[in-house]
Amino acid sequence: MIKASVVGATGYTGEELVYLLAGHPGVEIGSLSAIVDKPTNISDIFPRFKGRVDAVCERFDARKAVDSCDVAFLALPHTVSMEFAPIFLKAGKKVIDLSADYRLPVSVYEKWYGKKHTDRENLRRAVYGLPELYRSEIKGADFIANPGCYPTSVVLAAAPLLKYKLAEPEGIIADVKSGVTGAGRKASLGLLFAEVADNFKAYKIGTHQHSPEINQQLGRTAGRDMDILFVPHVIPTRRGILSTVYLKAKKGVTQKDIDGAYAKFYGDEPFVRFLGGGAVPELKDVLCANFCDVGVKLAAGTIVAVSAIDNLTKGAAGQAVQNMNIICGLEEKEGLM
Amino acid sequence: MIKASVVGATGYTGEELVYLLAGHPGVEIGSLSAIVDKPTNISDIFPRFKGRVDAVCERFDARKAVDSCDVAFLALPHTVSMEFAPIFLKAGKKVIDLSADYRLPVSVYEKWYGKKHTDRENLRRAVYGLPELYRSEIKGADFIANPGCYPTSVVLAAAPLLKYKLAEPEGIIADVKSGVTGAGRKASLGLLFAEVADNFKAYKIGTHQHSPEINQQLGRTAGRDMDILFVPHVIPTRRGILSTVYLKAKKGVTQKDIDGAYAKFYGDEPFVRFLGGGAVPELKDVLCANFCDVGVKLAAGTIVAVSAIDNLTKGAAGQAVQNMNIICGLEEKEGLM
Amino acid sequence: MIKASVVGATGYTGEELVYLLAGHPGVEIGSLSAIVDKPTNISDIFPRFKGRVDAVCERFDARKAVDSCDVAFLALPHTVSMEFAPIFLKAGKKVIDLSADYRLPVSVYEKWYGKKHTDRENLRRAVYGLPELYRSEIKGADFIANPGCYPTSVVLAAAPLLKYKLAEPEGIIADVKSGVTGAGRKASLGLLFAEVADNFKAYKIGTHQHSPEINQQLGRTAGRDMDILFVPHVIPTRRGILSTVYLKAKKGVTQKDIDGAYAKFYGDEPFVRFLGGGAVPELKDVLCANFCDVGVKLAAGTIVAVSAIDNLTKGAAGQAVQNMNIICGLEEKEGLM
Amino acid sequence: MIKASVVGATGYTGEELVYLLAGHPGVEIGSLSAIVDKPTNISDIFPRFKGRVDAVCERFDARKAVDSCDVAFLALPHTVSMEFAPIFLKAGKKVIDLSADYRLPVSVYEKWYGKKHTDRENLRRAVYGLPELYRSEIKGADFIANPGCYPTSVVLAAAPLLKYKLAEPEGIIADVKSGVTGAGRKASLGLLFAEVADNFKAYKIGTHQHSPEINQQLGRTAGRDMDILFVPHVIPTRRGILSTVYLKAKKGVTQKDIDGAYAKFYGDEPFVRFLGGGAVPELKDVLCANFCDVGVKLAAGTIVAVSAIDNLTKGAAGQAVQNMNIICGLEEKEGLM
Repeated sequence: MIKASVVGATGYTGEELVYLLAGHPGVEIGSLSAIVDKPTNISDIFPRFKGRVDAVCERFDARKAVDSCDVAFLALPHTVSMEFAPIFLKAGKKVIDLSADYRLPVSVYEKWYGKKHTDRENLRRAVYGLPELYRSEIKGADFIANPGCYPTSVVLAAAPLLKYKLAEPEGIIADVKSGVTGAGRKASLGLLFAEVADNFKAYKIGTHQHSPEINQQLGRTAGRDMDILFVPHVIPTRRGILSTVYLKAKKGVTQKDIDGAYAKFYGDEPFVRFLGGGAVPELKDVLCANFCDVGVKLAAGTIVAVSAIDNLTKGAAGQAVQNMNIICGLEEKEGLM
Repeated sequence: MIKASVVGATGYTGEELVYLLAGHPGVEIGSLSAIVDKPTNISDIFPRFKGRVDAVCERFDARKAVDSCDVAFLALPHTVSMEFAPIFLKAGKKVIDLSADYRLPVSVYEKWYGKKHTDRENLRRAVYGLPELYRSEIKGADFIANPGCYPTSVVLAAAPLLKYKLAEPEGIIADVKSGVTGAGRKASLGLLFAEVADNFKAYKIGTHQHSPEINQQLGRTAGRDMDILFVPHVIPTRRGILSTVYLKAKKGVTQKDIDGAYAKFYGDEPFVRFLGGGAVPELKDVLCANFCDVGVKLAAGTIVAVSAIDNLTKGAAGQAVQNMNIICGLEEKEGLM
Repeated sequence: MIKASVVGATGYTGEELVYLLAGHPGVEIGSLSAIVDKPTNISDIFPRFKGRVDAVCERFDARKAVDSCDVAFLALPHTVSMEFAPIFLKAGKKVIDLSADYRLPVSVYEKWYGKKHTDRENLRRAVYGLPELYRSEIKGADFIANPGCYPTSVVLAAAPLLKYKLAEPEGIIADVKSGVTGAGRKASLGLLFAEVADNFKAYKIGTHQHSPEINQQLGRTAGRDMDILFVPHVIPTRRGILSTVYLKAKKGVTQKDIDGAYAKFYGDEPFVRFLGGGAVPELKDVLCANFCDVGVKLAAGTIVAVSAIDNLTKGAAGQAVQNMNIICGLEEKEGLM
Repeated sequence: MIKASVVGATGYTGEELVYLLAGHPGVEIGSLSAIVDKPTNISDIFPRFKGRVDAVCERFDARKAVDSCDVAFLALPHTVSMEFAPIFLKAGKKVIDLSADYRLPVSVYEKWYGKKHTDRENLRRAVYGLPELYRSEIKGADFIANPGCYPTSVVLAAAPLLKYKLAEPEGIIADVKSGVTGAGRKASLGLLFAEVADNFKAYKIGTHQHSPEINQQLGRTAGRDMDILFVPHVIPTRRGILSTVYLKAKKGVTQKDIDGAYAKFYGDEPFVRFLGGGAVPELKDVLCANFCDVGVKLAAGTIVAVSAIDNLTKGAAGQAVQNMNIICGLEEKEGLM
């Protein structure tokens, strides 16, 4: 049994991680920590866990946390993770970080997240945990930078087109729609039911901090610098991201070429379901599941690539468990079906 | 033109008041105040008002507020209103208070709201603003205690049964369901979209602070002390209250007796729509309207009285405007249809 | 491996059954049938099943259906199941029927469901599948009448009070709120998103066809005839039932007595979580789970018993699988955690 | 008083029309017709109208309908309106048609709507009723083709950019999100609450029948043929359309140029609220109002033009009333604020 610990167990991502780890046949929970008043059973914090998860969540204690785990999950806000990752790494533990702290080059990170990076050493060894693109690197790694929810969604939608040069790498637009849990579990007027229900809006047009991560990953795939336009919107749902990505088709590209490319790119992937034939996915089919559903339609010279994920599962906790399975030598789908 | 001012213009109730007053043909807005950083047009705070309402909202200034109005609406939290009402009353202005501060006897208020009452003098002159029960007292009043949303809903559902002695006054249960805006506009984890959507729950069973107000009003109608059991629930909607009130029918009472009683009690009321024949109302038919829809069904000895209101309209701002119309000598429906 | 077949696989209950059976470690799907145009993979009907369930759904063929299963689940409308159950029973197969066809005495059934009962013989051998009340009878049975969603919710909320005589058996009121999937998957104006969203209503007050089933089960527990008032409402959610049941406390009964009774009654139950101390459950904690959460509060002489279930899980498919586990000798929780 | 009749009064658009006309100070309802079993008061069909609207809805009778009105509103499905418009026009009545039957050239219409056009004569005299673009033509007209909801939203978002040549006319993408009432009031599985809630999807990518209407209108504004890519999506809300339109900025164009163009184009418009400075609108601010809120942001060479309307108001019934005001010589805002 692999012992797994979660740091930051009381956010939406932490909650989902605990849920998945508790149901994972190859894992036992080592320790849970968060900012709590006093040690509290996680099932008192999330009553839906009663009868299913029995573990105490307490304030972070470095020695305890390190001793109790083989692999640590950091479900912490950006700029906080880099204070915790070194503690586990120095002790020889595996770490899967769900924040943005180890996903970008220092200069890019510091520009977009507005804080000095204090752990450049480990930043260099972190492997970007998108198994569909980097499975072989992930296999040998002990430190994973788990992708952001938006980048997972956009990159999986568009990567095959760039890899096989079916679309122009310029002028790409990602019009993305996300449920509310993507914003985290914090008391804020803008996240109130009365503000979100019956509403819909765009925000941070071209300025969202996930933009450089998307560009970096699509850039690696395309083998060149990218500058896509990323426009996130808020859907009145709890969970889920649906991305509609627009790319200019290269001359002569057909729907059949596109279908072939996705089938080849994702042929053996356990968690990507490519629809084919111009059909596109719906959010409801991936909710609470680790799947990324992808459908692509060629329309008048533009390729419309649509992907659907659950932001808390394939967009965060589920993908983190998938990465854990890979780096710990478990079957990749274990605990995720 | 009557000049009306709103103190507390940035809450959900304040917003609705400004909306109704701005559209009222006999009213002009005198002043708006709230806790704001700097004087701000109300349409910058609530963009839906752009092109419809043009008024500055600023921090409360007693002289300015008093001078600018004939009638003041206090859309303030409980225990805060009693600091503001005396200012307007001393200056001879009419006041409509939407808080609970002037609805209950001192001792009951202090017990349920946990604070000493500091304005007993005005408490004595306040008239409870439920026009369907107290229109004649309201007519001559210059200080109105506007009813709570839950009491409006429950009292209008059950009053005819107690007035005409068709139901036993004991053992009454009010199972009430409310949308989220009833809790006010404040950043709180429990009010987040992600906590409220797809959820439903009861809260404060038998201990909600609106219980004594309901008992007082039904008691006046019945001519005796009451002790009903009030059980509020939260619906995943923005607005609306649906009350299902259970009363034991007196011996021999028929559906026809009940229909007759409601028809008589509410015959000429402009804002109560009695369905009759055992039909019961739906929330959607009263949303954003000042109506209280009522339907009553006799089932195996129990009378099930169901009412539906919009908590922000008939349950707060709409009823306040209705009261203003009455005390200012305007047509009661003006600005509310 | 137990081979399980589902008749009526394309409704909401059928979908949930297929989902649970496909993930059950001790089960393989024998056959799926429904009214379909042509044999279709169930994952083409419910795309969320892709990569998880691979089974063809076709029109019912008696021989094929019988031959392919050890146990048959009938997820059919009322009055339809009684045409199918005899086919499987005659062939010596175990049957779990999710309709109301085998839950009531003939005369009661014919009165409330408006149709002649055509299979009285099997009606006599059917065991009511509420494990918390009838586990020992279920163990030896090969034909289970799976309880209705509303009865499961109301009976589990109130049974301990009647069993231990803490509440009066008369004047019980069940004010129950259900998500929309309870009405089934059929194209009907009243079930449209635009009619249900932002709405809330009561319906069939005292006349819902689940009333006699509730009375029968509470009556067995209390050892006398019952006549409770059952008032269902529709919540704007997809799933879930929250019941608020009101009972008059017997003289001298305390919260401690109540807590003790529930603790004793449900002490070892794997799927009932009793909260205790007057706390009451929320819908969100049981969604997509087979739990029934129960909380009970004594308030001024009235006992308010609140239960929460997922109508498609503990209220239908989950409970059916729980019954299958029991009658097939599997661990009761298998495939349900 | 202008006498107005509504043909097709029981759909969502018809309901909204009746609501607006009943509250319009210069209008009285002449007659209401729809496919009803027997003459029925419209407030029995839509109970929210009780106490506000008192008019009988009956099956269409040509003579009665013509005699009772000065202006007729046709709230009918596509391909049905063209059977009704000639009846009123021949009798010299003004007509506002809310279907697509008179918005497109014959050949385009027949291709996209799959039916022969049977009223080419009146098609020629119909004026496209988008006041912000064609107010002067509308003024003199007696037959208005009221714009589609999607075209209203997309055209108002993008027209100033094309008019003032700030954006390239090629490669325009309209990623549009609509609430469910846009699909009309019909019993269909795909419109059920249980299918729409918690879901989000794209549909008819590049093939939606509103595409040619959008192209025609933007083409007129740009003075050339257009071929934009229109991709509609479904939001889990009842009402509202938010369009995110992407255009390539012409060289050297600045945010200031854009703000200036919109300010000039919409300067005096009563129902378009331009936000300016790169701010973008939210759906909630236009719900149940006749406004189109527009905000535009220049981001890395792409102009992102965002508009928000209520599909039933500015996208249908509200705009129809606005057109009525214009052609009948009333103040354009009357009955719409």
